[in-house]
Amino acid sequence: MISVVLLGAGNVATHLYKAFSKAENITVTQWYNRSNSAISSYANEVETIDSLADLKEADIYIMAISDDSISKLSKVLPFENRLVAHTSGSVSIHDLDKKNQRAVFYPLQTFSKDADLDFSEVPICIEVTEKRNLQILKDLAENLGCKSYKINTEQRQTLHLSAVFVNNFTNQLYRIAHEISDAKSINFDILKPLITETAQKVQNMSPYMAQTGPAKRNDKKTIKRHLKQIESEEHKKIYKLLTESIKKTHGQR
Amino acid sequence: MISVVLLGAGNVATHLYKAFSKAENITVTQWYNRSNSAISSYANEVETIDSLADLKEADIYIMAISDDSISKLSKVLPFENRLVAHTSGSVSIHDLDKKNQRAVFYPLQTFSKDADLDFSEVPICIEVTEKRNLQILKDLAENLGCKSYKINTEQRQTLHLSAVFVNNFTNQLYRIAHEISDAKSINFDILKPLITETAQKVQNMSPYMAQTGPAKRNDKKTIKRHLKQIESEEHKKIYKLLTESIKKTHGQR
Ligand SMILES: NC(=O)c1ccc[n+]([C@@H]2O[C@H](COP(=O)([O-])OP(=O)(O)OC[C@H]3O[C@@H](n4cnc5c(N)ncnc54)[C@H](OP(=O)(O)O)[C@@H]3O)[C@@H](O)[C@H]2O)c1
Ligand SMILES: NC(=O)c1ccc[n+]([C@@H]2O[C@H](COP(=O)([O-])OP(=O)(O)OC[C@H]3O[C@@H](n4cnc5c(N)ncnc54)[C@H](OP(=O)(O)O)[C@@H]3O)[C@@H](O)[C@H]2O)c1
Repeated sequence: MISVVLLGAGNVATHLYKAFSKAENITVTQWYNRSNSAISSYANEVETIDSLADLKEADIYIMAISDDSISKLSKVLPFENRLVAHTSGSVSIHDLDKKNQRAVFYPLQTFSKDADLDFSEVPICIEVTEKRNLQILKDLAENLGCKSYKINTEQRQTLHLSAVFVNNFTNQLYRIAHEISDAKSINFDILKPLITETAQKVQNMSPYMAQTGPAKRNDKKTIKRHLKQIESEEHKKIYKLLTESIKKTHGQR
Repeated sequence: MISVVLLGAGNVATHLYKAFSKAENITVTQWYNRSNSAISSYANEVETIDSLADLKEADIYIMAISDDSISKLSKVLPFENRLVAHTSGSVSIHDLDKKNQRAVFYPLQTFSKDADLDFSEVPICIEVTEKRNLQILKDLAENLGCKSYKINTEQRQTLHLSAVFVNNFTNQLYRIAHEISDAKSINFDILKPLITETAQKVQNMSPYMAQTGPAKRNDKKTIKRHLKQIESEEHKKIYKLLTESIKKTHGQR
């Protein structure tokens, strides 16, 4: 049995709490948040606290709190030499105060409090300062049904950057398509199966192999017509830049 | 029962053939391709032909052939006043020779011959020159289990453009993430659940509502660090342009 104290009550902490409570070999000893109101509705199933002085002993303390507060909160933890992990994709493991044993337990996924999510599908990126702690982090991930990957801080920051491309930037392309189609009274629903299939394709095929379309074929006539169709200068720039990028990747320039 | 003659043997024609053969109320009268070799393996289940002179009567002729050849082939069809449709997202309905009744049956999806695909998930965009032909095209889609949408040529071309954004450009962002993570020996598999979830999220939520991340928050510190991490000038440009685009969409500039 792995005992966990969870700190924070945001998107990640809430999903982690639900996943931990469901797992057979994990027990949530306490759930801390600086304001109790965010977690008080869970008080009948777990001990909720809002004072660090009340923290009990546990195998691991998981701080799922805002990036900017990780360092500060780690300093004021009222104990030493215990195992403390943060869940951030971008904060260094060394931002955790060194009076404790340090770790990272970064779930590479996009979480919103209300959106349901199969936690077992979330890859967990793990880092430790003391090698002997690797196993407990792996066990934690495994007990959630998750795959875990040992990743150093530089790699984790690279993943965080890559995540911006496949998540935030991709979502902005969806947004632009939404704007473009809305302007001609087209139901955005028509594009949804294509969005799904595009994401599906690269699950078993490299994005390189999955590429199709006018830029890859260097189909100048279609590219020209598309540029004429686009009304916004900003969308035009994005169209041109990504077309050039595809052409470069596929040896068309 | 709707009788169909299929022309062409590429990605779309092959998927259409399979979907038509499975449908209860559709019969494929003939399958034409200029070179028989591409379809000869189906000769035991359907009449395959490579000469236009052999074309029989049918309710609809579907030309799933390369954009550039649609006009030319429609001119040499050896009959008049029958219903002829093409399957292109970008070719005008008026590119079909007017000696026949003209239509478009555009399946908005990305097809590869080998990739399996649930055809009933494909939205079909329909256009006709004679209103009375709308029903047969709708029936055809419905018999495949597909949703159909009445769309004019301008709207269809806008959809085609939007599809480039959500498919080709999105796939290029996956490719860039693949390059960035490869360079640090990171397994691209770690990013796959995030790719799936990003596409999943906009099935029930607008891309606007689904956006998260440093650009939306205008988190200058993270954006600066990301730009420092990116090695390729081209990737930097894409990062900057899409970050600006997100900021603009979400009122951060
Ligand atoms: N959201 C994601 O998709 C995602 C994915 C992977 C990793 N992460 C990482 O996970 C961590 C948490 O992210 P999140 O999205 O869950 O954040 P969030 O929803 O904004 O929640 C932040 C939590 O941190 C607490 N907090 C902020 N400052 C604090 C302080 N000085 N002392 C104590 N608690 C403080 C907040 O407490 P109050 O409730 O009192 O405000 C809140 O419970 C971050 O490191 C983030 O980078 C997020
Ligand atoms: N692929 C997609 O994802 C997709 C999606 C929606 C719509 N579409 C549209 O569907 C149509 C077909 O696309 P596709 O991807 O299936 O193309 P494809 O795989 O390249 O196949 C093209 C077919 O057209 C035939 N063809 C080319 N020139 C011809 C000519 N002059 N006379 C007779 N046949 C000719 C080819 O015959 P041979 O076998 O003899 O070369 C081949 O069978 C296009 O209008 C395309 O825009 C494609």
